[in-house]
Amino acid sequence: MRHFSPGPVDPAILERLLCAAHHAPSVGFMQPWRFIRITDPALRLRLHTAVERERLATAVALGERQDDFMKLKVEGMLECGELLAVALMDRREQHVFGRRTLPEMDLASTACAIQNMWLAARAEGLGMGWVSLFDVDELRQLLHMPDGAKPIALLCIGHVDAFYAKPMLEEARWATRMPLDSCVFENTWVDDVPADA
Amino acid sequence: MRHFSPGPVDPAILERLLCAAHHAPSVGFMQPWRFIRITDPALRLRLHTAVERERLATAVALGERQDDFMKLKVEGMLECGELLAVALMDRREQHVFGRRTLPEMDLASTACAIQNMWLAARAEGLGMGWVSLFDVDELRQLLHMPDGAKPIALLCIGHVDAFYAKPMLEEARWATRMPLDSCVFENTWVDDVPADA
Repeated sequence: MRHFSPGPVDPAILERLLCAAHHAPSVGFMQPWRFIRITDPALRLRLHTAVERERLATAVALGERQDDFMKLKVEGMLECGELLAVALMDRREQHVFGRRTLPEMDLASTACAIQNMWLAARAEGLGMGWVSLFDVDELRQLLHMPDGAKPIALLCIGHVDAFYAKPMLEEARWATRMPLDSCVFENTWVDDVPADA
Repeated sequence: MRHFSPGPVDPAILERLLCAAHHAPSVGFMQPWRFIRITDPALRLRLHTAVERERLATAVALGERQDDFMKLKVEGMLECGELLAVALMDRREQHVFGRRTLPEMDLASTACAIQNMWLAARAEGLGMGWVSLFDVDELRQLLHMPDGAKPIALLCIGHVDAFYAKPMLEEARWATRMPLDSCVFENTWVDDVPADA
């Protein structure tokens, strides 16, 4: 994730980003996304601590790639102009349309909303990063969510001095981009190429 | 979903759509998406039969909304110019970065790819619909996927005579759009408004 420059995000721009998110398609038009704007500096710090704990746990879980991982910038939670938590709403079990066999389509819809936001942020000249390094229960508690809701993202949004020419993890040689051909099959599955871990 | 007009999708446009999908962000740059282009008419029919079976099962599960649901156009699999299945790749458990506590981030990344494709299709003047009415094992079998892969979408893509002014399910009064304000909180959760089912 690119380093953020100081300075707040214009509230009118933030409104446009949220509006872009809210106009994403959703399964059965359920609109499962909920956004929590973090404006309390003490809460931002507590969320950062939760992420830092999971970052260290991830490093250990990565084994031989631990050192490489620890060199990567994987969050910008303390520097970004705006920090948003995104969650799946409570009482999603009421929504059956398009979810009877694939209940996780609520997450898919919310990811579509976040991708809209990502593209809108880029169009506004802002950087955005999606942090998924946290313990779900810990975040639920910090943000006073009911058990039926589920946090799925911490979004770091803000001004940046420049954008990466390629994905940061590609530039840092964490992984390489697959050729498009190896992701597209015809009529039947083709055995996966072994991927970078 | 809008009715599709006859006519194939230009292969150069399909390539651009797939390229837009493949350039989505992904957790740990894992690129978990796989696309299967359905060009065999017999396979398309079998996939349609699988969807039709789940459409009827969903109608029953919806109880009192069964009749309203059955009047909706929820798939365009036999008319659309291009039909793509989208799946999560095999051997995803190797990827720990950003997924130790939230393994479903592979689905989130693939949904970002599909949303890129959706916007790109709209920019090309094409309609697209995401069908999630199917039994996962049945689709896995029809497309010869290994157990570790998972189908998550059938995408109907093609020419349309016009686009909806609002989401079809809003026009059909299946559900109403929530005010943006009721999806955005500050620092703490606010109790959900009861949503349309």
